[in-house]
Amino acid sequence: MLRGMTTYETLSYDVADGILTLLLNRPDALNSFTLTMADELEHAFRRASEDDDVAAIVVTGAGRAFCAGMDLTREGNVFGLDEAQDPTNEDMRSRLDDPSVAVGVRDTGGRVTLAIYDCKKPVIAAVNGAAVGIGATMICAMDVRLASEKARIGFVFGKIGITPEACSSWFLPRIVGVSRALEMLYSAEIMTAEETQEVGLVRSVHAPDDLLPAAYELARKFTRNRSRVATALTRQLIYRNMAADHPMVAHQSDSLAIFYASREDGKEGVKSFLEKRDPEFTGKASQMPAFYPWWD
Amino acid sequence: MLRGMTTYETLSYDVADGILTLLLNRPDALNSFTLTMADELEHAFRRASEDDDVAAIVVTGAGRAFCAGMDLTREGNVFGLDEAQDPTNEDMRSRLDDPSVAVGVRDTGGRVTLAIYDCKKPVIAAVNGAAVGIGATMICAMDVRLASEKARIGFVFGKIGITPEACSSWFLPRIVGVSRALEMLYSAEIMTAEETQEVGLVRSVHAPDDLLPAAYELARKFTRNRSRVATALTRQLIYRNMAADHPMVAHQSDSLAIFYASREDGKEGVKSFLEKRDPEFTGKASQMPAFYPWWD
Amino acid sequence: MLRGMTTYETLSYDVADGILTLLLNRPDALNSFTLTMADELEHAFRRASEDDDVAAIVVTGAGRAFCAGMDLTREGNVFGLDEAQDPTNEDMRSRLDDPSVAVGVRDTGGRVTLAIYDCKKPVIAAVNGAAVGIGATMICAMDVRLASEKARIGFVFGKIGITPEACSSWFLPRIVGVSRALEMLYSAEIMTAEETQEVGLVRSVHAPDDLLPAAYELARKFTRNRSRVATALTRQLIYRNMAADHPMVAHQSDSLAIFYASREDGKEGVKSFLEKRDPEFTGKASQMPAFYPWWD
Repeated sequence: MLRGMTTYETLSYDVADGILTLLLNRPDALNSFTLTMADELEHAFRRASEDDDVAAIVVTGAGRAFCAGMDLTREGNVFGLDEAQDPTNEDMRSRLDDPSVAVGVRDTGGRVTLAIYDCKKPVIAAVNGAAVGIGATMICAMDVRLASEKARIGFVFGKIGITPEACSSWFLPRIVGVSRALEMLYSAEIMTAEETQEVGLVRSVHAPDDLLPAAYELARKFTRNRSRVATALTRQLIYRNMAADHPMVAHQSDSLAIFYASREDGKEGVKSFLEKRDPEFTGKASQMPAFYPWWD
Repeated sequence: MLRGMTTYETLSYDVADGILTLLLNRPDALNSFTLTMADELEHAFRRASEDDDVAAIVVTGAGRAFCAGMDLTREGNVFGLDEAQDPTNEDMRSRLDDPSVAVGVRDTGGRVTLAIYDCKKPVIAAVNGAAVGIGATMICAMDVRLASEKARIGFVFGKIGITPEACSSWFLPRIVGVSRALEMLYSAEIMTAEETQEVGLVRSVHAPDDLLPAAYELARKFTRNRSRVATALTRQLIYRNMAADHPMVAHQSDSLAIFYASREDGKEGVKSFLEKRDPEFTGKASQMPAFYPWWD
Repeated sequence: MLRGMTTYETLSYDVADGILTLLLNRPDALNSFTLTMADELEHAFRRASEDDDVAAIVVTGAGRAFCAGMDLTREGNVFGLDEAQDPTNEDMRSRLDDPSVAVGVRDTGGRVTLAIYDCKKPVIAAVNGAAVGIGATMICAMDVRLASEKARIGFVFGKIGITPEACSSWFLPRIVGVSRALEMLYSAEIMTAEETQEVGLVRSVHAPDDLLPAAYELARKFTRNRSRVATALTRQLIYRNMAADHPMVAHQSDSLAIFYASREDGKEGVKSFLEKRDPEFTGKASQMPAFYPWWD
């Protein structure tokens, strides 16, 4: 387990039936993003990754917004960057390599999406309302996105003279293709739920009252009678191999993964299949096979 | 030519009019996958790659299934991995680097899809029925997929506690995008032909009797009046450059390819175009230009 | 500014209201591609990249074609490659690494698309008619493509025994996916505007008279009240990070970009947002922040 926090200022972390609901919980401020929220989201995703009570994660917003972007009304450091510093490129790069550099020159949204990238659990975005700026880029690192009819999604960075963040230049084109990604960023427009479904950014659109039930149903489909270890491996196989330059990279990790999976939960999986019964998997995501993380 | 086998236990290899039909031929077992089938598929794709009688390959299944997955009813080594061994990661990696390691710790499906990846001929999947597990991942390495209305495709690994294989974490997201790939794998559901077309996994759905004629028509379109050398180069340009980190990698291989192509079949191609007649190309895929394989 | 040419033989370069119209201007030859056009296009994109009067670029063709491909009726060097030479692979590779090698063994289309790749401005293709061969591959390096109902797009290389060029093996699969890219190249067919929209190659289809107005409207949407510096950074973030093997690569450049953007135009952007007025950005693409180009 990670150290520290069990409760959060800006989030609620509720686990029921193996599903974590991660609620962005500053409804009076439309769940706008602050440094505290960045720290807490990073912590919550890393905690959920190791929390064996959590099989899948549903992320949604309290009140009428999902996340209205960076809180621009705060004094000073609105982008989470330390303006007192003027680092050289080399200096900045070396600091980026230092994982202890949690604030300062590191994009705060990226700290969150890198924690999502590393997560061992499926992550489902239930976009209940406005998802703007970091609210839009954050969901690109989640595995699938469901939207309420009331959702409005906008990569609005261009309107205030800044650049997209939270590693969205890595995630977004892999979801919607390069041309749509560029058009969304250049135009900086706020899209309706239907528009985001047409371009493949969200998988489905729901009446507001049906959104969370649909997200939970999907989470249960992803986790019921599933090996926690195989799911964690599958998630990392996809994210790491889809960006590899040759399928041999996938072959190496596939071989490692299936070799080890077949000796543990996979053995029970085949047995239960042949015996026509539900499997009883015992693997835990907190105790991965020795070869994980294989990319190190 | 590769050494060995000209007939197969689990496949039939029939060439007519320049089109190889590779038939998965264990209809009584729903063409389920065995170690023998893996060896024979790998051999057949490497043979067809060098066989100048073959201009394109159509892969389909005998009887009512395409391939019902790994044969789980066999004793012992159902995943094609040697359970007597407990290799360290380093040990496994070094063995994976050794191409002579055909069985043991290497995923058998991956040996097949890597042979498809290396192939010099267009590969068309004609999915006539159930394509499950390795039946589903195998077709992701083929260039295009046509489905019968009776096709059912499922990445069902999650149901038995194992991980997707056959380099599908490399191929599948490049066909359907990362979010759909993850949803297919997490849910592990069997999809109808229509569902697979909606998400872009198959290009077209056909009445059962129309499936093979449509596949052959496409194969003829891909090969009639085509240079075998230019087609082989085109296939490798796409698979290798689409995963490169900079278009300069493509520029280098493009320049090599077009330089050499323009001195051989390309010269006849331009001449025939200006003379308004069909070209008579003479290049053979078994005799590629000196710069092939350029990526070595 | 780059040296040299201010007028072109094969192009017109007209800037109005911040939008450059780059017109392929050999209408009597259906704007077919020549070595001169390659040189001039490469020059024009590199010039426009640095030209602070240009905020976005619209590329279209004079007369009824967009670009009918390489001019095959010319004597001799139709592919722009020096047939007197027979370089070894090593020799060719070393020459490709030398940026001064403008003609000879380097694919001429690739010189153009690499200049588009490097460009700091959004690039919009307005495909008014036939776009064939290099006419088709050239537009794959542009950010978005609009088509007239009269547009016909074909990757016809296969018909004359040659290979696709202009780095299209890098760009095309990232727009339409690997399977559609291969099918377009193997079949080498000329597609209607509607067909290219169905597969995601063009974003929208317009009546002939509406094409340019739609392209200009999009160009204005991409540039009105936009920071030139943030737009240039955004373009390079997407093209470079979408092909990176890990989101940490994006995190590093995101952090650099947002740190610097937030100190210049981003400061005005936030201020104008809070003051509910249009921003007045002063950054120039010809004067990028010190960390640009960060990938060097």
